Amino acid sequence: MEFTDLQRQIEFIKEVDKLKYILRKTRLFNSNRNENDAEHSWHLALMAIVLADHANFKIDLLKVVKMLLIHDIVEIDAGDTFIYDTEKNHENTVQERQAAQRIFGILPEHQAAELIAIWEEFEEQQTNEAKFARTMDRLEPLLQNTSNQGGTWNEFGVNYDKVYSKKQVIKNGSDSIWKFAEQLINESVEKGILKK
Amino acid sequence: MEFTDLQRQIEFIKEVDKLKYILRKTRLFNSNRNENDAEHSWHLALMAIVLADHANFKIDLLKVVKMLLIHDIVEIDAGDTFIYDTEKNHENTVQERQAAQRIFGILPEHQAAELIAIWEEFEEQQTNEAKFARTMDRLEPLLQNTSNQGGTWNEFGVNYDKVYSKKQVIKNGSDSIWKFAEQLINESVEKGILKK
Repeated sequence: MEFTDLQRQIEFIKEVDKLKYILRKTRLFNSNRNENDAEHSWHLALMAIVLADHANFKIDLLKVVKMLLIHDIVEIDAGDTFIYDTEKNHENTVQERQAAQRIFGILPEHQAAELIAIWEEFEEQQTNEAKFARTMDRLEPLLQNTSNQGGTWNEFGVNYDKVYSKKQVIKNGSDSIWKFAEQLINESVEKGILKK
Repeated sequence: MEFTDLQRQIEFIKEVDKLKYILRKTRLFNSNRNENDAEHSWHLALMAIVLADHANFKIDLLKVVKMLLIHDIVEIDAGDTFIYDTEKNHENTVQERQAAQRIFGILPEHQAAELIAIWEEFEEQQTNEAKFARTMDRLEPLLQNTSNQGGTWNEFGVNYDKVYSKKQVIKNGSDSIWKFAEQLINESVEKGILKK
């Protein structure tokens, strides 16, 4: 049986429901409850809408939002990778690329190609949209950890240098958000929730 | 102290985290786990991106996506209302309007005004974008209930007439999606998971 476009799209919609079961290491604000990837993606997309004027450059906001809504979908197959994991590198592994082919491949071909291209654009970090999307992805857990007395920093023994190094890409998308984030990191050291 | 725009936006970002705790009556696909409003909003926004070509008219997709990402935020204060609730009417209650003023009001004024207007546009159902957004909002639980042996239809004794009546607004946004949805409703009766 030949699947129509709509049937393929509905299959994709069902498949991505699984993102709601993929748990991140970070926890909700002022909370012990782990965040899942679907909630996380919703939050980042909304943040991009609200913070768009802080971008260092003109951005195609619809593309940024698409990027953020789909950026973690590969984790349905590949699982979540903790940003401070020292053994497993998150960026665009073979497993993630295969996941992108399988999951976006459920869609009609032109859509699969579009969404795979947007996901790769995010991973490659060359365009304005990809940089601003990453700014959102780095900002949210910073806000969460500071609301949770250090959160994953304390839980996994992550120090100031590692945090600073991972977070400074925020600057690539927005100088003003980086200024805010840098201050938050420094205050965290003063408060004793992030170790130098 | 005068709050800068960025500080207000960060406060809003923290506040809307609460949407992750608002549980809907419907459950995830093939699952007993209730869906929360943040996951639901993510799913609808992604559905709109994937299904946009089925709209009956030209739509501003970014506006539809914004609408879907924020459409349930008022439920942080007003709570979720079950679509088949016979006592409480969901549409734009005083409580929901107050919630919109309080929550979007955390943002800088021009953004608060924009998001309140988009939320009201969704509730009023007069524009193409509002109609297509509602098509997404009615389609997702239909897919969920059919994956769960009738789901909330069985759990709360909702019959075919009520389902058909609530679902037919799908047609206002998309004839082809309605054709698919109508078939799904009729098949549900044949399978015995929806009572006539």
